[in-house]
Amino acid sequence: MVDITDKINTLRIATAQAVVKVSNEKTIEAIHNNSVPKGDVFAMSKAAGLLGVKKTPDLLPDCHPLPIEYTGIEYNINGLEIQVRCTIKTIYKTGVEVEAMHGASVVALNMYDMLKPIDKGVEIHYIKLLEKKGGKSDFKDKYR
Amino acid sequence: MVDITDKINTLRIATAQAVVKVSNEKTIEAIHNNSVPKGDVFAMSKAAGLLGVKKTPDLLPDCHPLPIEYTGIEYNINGLEIQVRCTIKTIYKTGVEVEAMHGASVVALNMYDMLKPIDKGVEIHYIKLLEKKGGKSDFKDKYR
Amino acid sequence: MVDITDKINTLRIATAQAVVKVSNEKTIEAIHNNSVPKGDVFAMSKAAGLLGVKKTPDLLPDCHPLPIEYTGIEYNINGLEIQVRCTIKTIYKTGVEVEAMHGASVVALNMYDMLKPIDKGVEIHYIKLLEKKGGKSDFKDKYR
Amino acid sequence: MVDITDKINTLRIATAQAVVKVSNEKTIEAIHNNSVPKGDVFAMSKAAGLLGVKKTPDLLPDCHPLPIEYTGIEYNINGLEIQVRCTIKTIYKTGVEVEAMHGASVVALNMYDMLKPIDKGVEIHYIKLLEKKGGKSDFKDKYR
Amino acid sequence: MVDITDKINTLRIATAQAVVKVSNEKTIEAIHNNSVPKGDVFAMSKAAGLLGVKKTPDLLPDCHPLPIEYTGIEYNINGLEIQVRCTIKTIYKTGVEVEAMHGASVVALNMYDMLKPIDKGVEIHYIKLLEKKGGKSDFKDKYR
Amino acid sequence: MVDITDKINTLRIATAQAVVKVSNEKTIEAIHNNSVPKGDVFAMSKAAGLLGVKKTPDLLPDCHPLPIEYTGIEYNINGLEIQVRCTIKTIYKTGVEVEAMHGASVVALNMYDMLKPIDKGVEIHYIKLLEKKGGKSDFKDKYR
Repeated sequence: MVDITDKINTLRIATAQAVVKVSNEKTIEAIHNNSVPKGDVFAMSKAAGLLGVKKTPDLLPDCHPLPIEYTGIEYNINGLEIQVRCTIKTIYKTGVEVEAMHGASVVALNMYDMLKPIDKGVEIHYIKLLEKKGGKSDFKDKYR
Repeated sequence: MVDITDKINTLRIATAQAVVKVSNEKTIEAIHNNSVPKGDVFAMSKAAGLLGVKKTPDLLPDCHPLPIEYTGIEYNINGLEIQVRCTIKTIYKTGVEVEAMHGASVVALNMYDMLKPIDKGVEIHYIKLLEKKGGKSDFKDKYR
Repeated sequence: MVDITDKINTLRIATAQAVVKVSNEKTIEAIHNNSVPKGDVFAMSKAAGLLGVKKTPDLLPDCHPLPIEYTGIEYNINGLEIQVRCTIKTIYKTGVEVEAMHGASVVALNMYDMLKPIDKGVEIHYIKLLEKKGGKSDFKDKYR
Repeated sequence: MVDITDKINTLRIATAQAVVKVSNEKTIEAIHNNSVPKGDVFAMSKAAGLLGVKKTPDLLPDCHPLPIEYTGIEYNINGLEIQVRCTIKTIYKTGVEVEAMHGASVVALNMYDMLKPIDKGVEIHYIKLLEKKGGKSDFKDKYR
Repeated sequence: MVDITDKINTLRIATAQAVVKVSNEKTIEAIHNNSVPKGDVFAMSKAAGLLGVKKTPDLLPDCHPLPIEYTGIEYNINGLEIQVRCTIKTIYKTGVEVEAMHGASVVALNMYDMLKPIDKGVEIHYIKLLEKKGGKSDFKDKYR
Repeated sequence: MVDITDKINTLRIATAQAVVKVSNEKTIEAIHNNSVPKGDVFAMSKAAGLLGVKKTPDLLPDCHPLPIEYTGIEYNINGLEIQVRCTIKTIYKTGVEVEAMHGASVVALNMYDMLKPIDKGVEIHYIKLLEKKGGKSDFKDKYR
């Protein structure tokens, strides 16, 4: 684990995405109509993601535990693709990129789990960092 | 949560993949030479994945806790892409697809976390089910 | 921890309740209108409760880990009181009463947490077992 | 999750209660005489509560992880009612009310779990905040 | 992780020990008199151990999750040494040796943590399997 | 739990050890040759230890959650004994001794778990603090 005792606290923000691709327009409708048998897909997956972000250091050995001071989950639908965006903020010595990627990934996996009974062809694509601020270098995904 | 009290135990097997795409051939070399500063990427990510599989029901609200009777993690390198394959077996009333997808995703996220200091362009692609056996219907990804 | 190696598997069902009492009719309206700033109170608290049920043996030392085969969360509103009912099923050697009580309690605590910014007077009452079936003796709360 | 990056650290103290109501004077005696088969009810439930407090952000999606700098558990017996009081302190940007309520609730649930074999009528009542200091507004429960 | 899908359920019992060695007779007296400032050392460490046993598969990657059907914690004092014995039973396809060793180790670590303020010289010795029954071969530590 | 609200942040460092004693020279060779069936013993046990350190406050009731800012795991082989050393750093109000001891103990337990199929006589010895800096008093084990 990287030694961060000499670093200083700064505001760190990271946004990551995951793309959930369903195989049928009816799946999108079922989400909108809140008719998925397991319940409200967006609200429940947001809850799973908010909890998942906080468990990142429990899953990744080298990840420092840090104070999550904000997590936001957003959904954007484009045809058969649902883009999940997870934004995290902290004021700490190290960044929150991997926490944002983990949050996006848990939201996407929970959508997969809830949609599985009505759509066998759901896939998860493009888990990647979209943007980060603070730390040694800012970053903006070029294709964003 | 789906009521499974009336179901019977059968052998269930699921294999899921995640693809970790690095941005530079040198990253692949560093993994091979075991020269990544955070340590042995494949062995440590396998450890994270084996633990992550068992935490799936802690992260996904509707996921039934079940006896994980086998987890295997495999890596295949193809150019700049590393395919992670996670295979899970259980003898239980419900399948292990989402556990396999979660395992693949945790391995991939840990690779991202360990490689981040030497490669800023790592992305995670194509988390999907490759194959499942047992339960109501078998499944084989058509493009596999 | 009680030794259950000699017991046999039977279907066990338990239903527990918690009552969340808000201090103002406007709080009930905000839940109905989905205008609580932290999000959809019923869906997110259900997600928290489904996860919480599975964590019961992580919190209570003498509680046996067991296969949760069904969890259901229901809400009933009566004036300023919201009754949360959590029903759990398993086929195992020991019952799920305390799991049901823990589930009801986590749902109620999450409602408290989400409602706190708009209502400072929320209280949680009457966490108790309503009914259980299976095991040495059935039980039905007399005032139910 | 509320964004707290702009808030400042202050000392926060919260005390919450849960009331465990047993159905028989003999249950109280068994606790006093340390003759409950599962063990020392007050010491073991205190241990469960101390651990439970630290797991609050693992259970409640919107709850910020924060440095628990003190947790105290106290018991007061009044007839058939045992009042559990959980006091928490932190120096942080947000309060510890829900952590205190969760701590009181886990202690009460563990008492229920340990007492169940000798008393089928245990109930948990009145989980509520008694007092908080620090933050935007102090609070004192009027009936305390 | 070893594939156990072909194995059959049998009763498995394992007993492991840890030895906690304190540096001063007064420490033993403080435990006996229940005058250790952090509380009742034996009862609270038993609670920690009962919970710790259930977390073994969360900590050890290759360890199968399994139904813990009995955990017992015993203490024997011999001069400055306290022997902690942890016995576990399951009816499952694989043994509980490492769970018993983990349980003994968590009890010992918690004793260390509670005794640290009054004794700076506490050490933990001889975490080892004393006995196991069931599975391919029984085992009895020769020096027991 | 000790009240630390009045304490100030200082750099704290602690190193603890565990000694894993195998029963046969061939076990040491299998580790060196990376021919242990469960995988790379040192890398996977390091991953387990890095995660285990972060779970210390989940296992020990009185242990304060704190920001782990560095964890290092080292192995030294001497005949049939493998010394595991776990060093932890934090800048916080309380020390990391018990976290270091827990880390060393999890690494040792995982080695036991991975080696069990090839060596039935593995034992864990001498889990103790080697050195600590910061806080009220420094400490150096006299026999180190």
